[in-house]
Amino acid sequence: MKTGRIAYDDKLERILRIAAEVFAEKGYHQASIRDISRATGVSLAGLYYYVESKEELLFRIQEHSFETLLENLRRLLEGVDDPHRRLRLLIENHLRFFVANMKEMKVLSHEADTLSGEAREQVDAMKREYAGIAKGIMAELAGSEPAVDLRVATYSLFGMMNWIYNWYRPERDVPVEELADDIHRLFLTGLLPLEDEVPADAARAAPGTTRPTIWRRT
Amino acid sequence: MKTGRIAYDDKLERILRIAAEVFAEKGYHQASIRDISRATGVSLAGLYYYVESKEELLFRIQEHSFETLLENLRRLLEGVDDPHRRLRLLIENHLRFFVANMKEMKVLSHEADTLSGEAREQVDAMKREYAGIAKGIMAELAGSEPAVDLRVATYSLFGMMNWIYNWYRPERDVPVEELADDIHRLFLTGLLPLEDEVPADAARAAPGTTRPTIWRRT
Repeated sequence: MKTGRIAYDDKLERILRIAAEVFAEKGYHQASIRDISRATGVSLAGLYYYVESKEELLFRIQEHSFETLLENLRRLLEGVDDPHRRLRLLIENHLRFFVANMKEMKVLSHEADTLSGEAREQVDAMKREYAGIAKGIMAELAGSEPAVDLRVATYSLFGMMNWIYNWYRPERDVPVEELADDIHRLFLTGLLPLEDEVPADAARAAPGTTRPTIWRRT
Repeated sequence: MKTGRIAYDDKLERILRIAAEVFAEKGYHQASIRDISRATGVSLAGLYYYVESKEELLFRIQEHSFETLLENLRRLLEGVDDPHRRLRLLIENHLRFFVANMKEMKVLSHEADTLSGEAREQVDAMKREYAGIAKGIMAELAGSEPAVDLRVATYSLFGMMNWIYNWYRPERDVPVEELADDIHRLFLTGLLPLEDEVPADAARAAPGTTRPTIWRRT
């Protein structure tokens, strides 16, 4: 399978977008190159001009999504040092991209383990870079004695943002700007009104557990 | 396909657990009843004694997982009125169940749309009940003027908890009690040290958007 860099022209981008829809609807393994050909109106020969196989199509969807996400983020963060601002830009960039590409999000999430070899390594490297940027921001925001594990914090934020493909419906839910506001706020300062305190007793572990819960910040 | 109530004996529970592993590894659509038979060591006739089809197996995995999750939660919440304590119990119940059943979590997440008809309706009804309990707790905690949309809050918490199957590795990450502590804390009071404030300027929308961001609580 080819994993070298290719140019993404308009036609290829359209093929990838529709292929992601087909994979999201039918599932990657049940979908055939023939299904993609039918859905795009591009002949099999036309598809094979761009990609060698269905697997390469999946790789190009993943590569192109993460590349776009990363490029947009790098551009937004350029010259911005304030970690608060950096976090806001990361959240908005992530949510805007995936609200506009919810099918890709489902494919990225469900087929994360499908690729192998060089293709997998390339996608994983982009994911590591992306998570690394996020974790760097967390470390600055959380201060010198973080109250929570930064890996938990980083992936909790990704979980909040990535789960939206399971529930968020632009036509019935809050608009994407408000979604970004709400997730930003929840992640930084939590659900609780500022004046409220967490009763220490409420935070102890559930019955049947041995380790006492330590609620470190109240 | 049968969707009526059945008794879950030890043998069926073992079949469901191993079937979930097979579905999680191979993908539901590529896995066959024959694969399940091989992995469980139960003959095809033995499997068909319990379920009519691979689809029913998927339904029983989903039904049994949500039923267990809901039953445990109802038992934990019985007689507990404090919403703080109720939230803590919900988070711990959810995380403990899914850390112990990470394969089921993947199957529940990836095959949420696979079932149809009566089976789908039954699973969806359990999910609605579960989300309803969570949303009720949120509504109490967030006070009379919630700073965030409660649907966003509810599914953000589920996102934080459900995403763990993508990254959490019990052998290298914090133990499950600390995971529950950290997610509880992040969700209620956020990442930011209490004395820190969010600079209003940091929370404005990213360039290229028209709607001004309203950071409602600072």
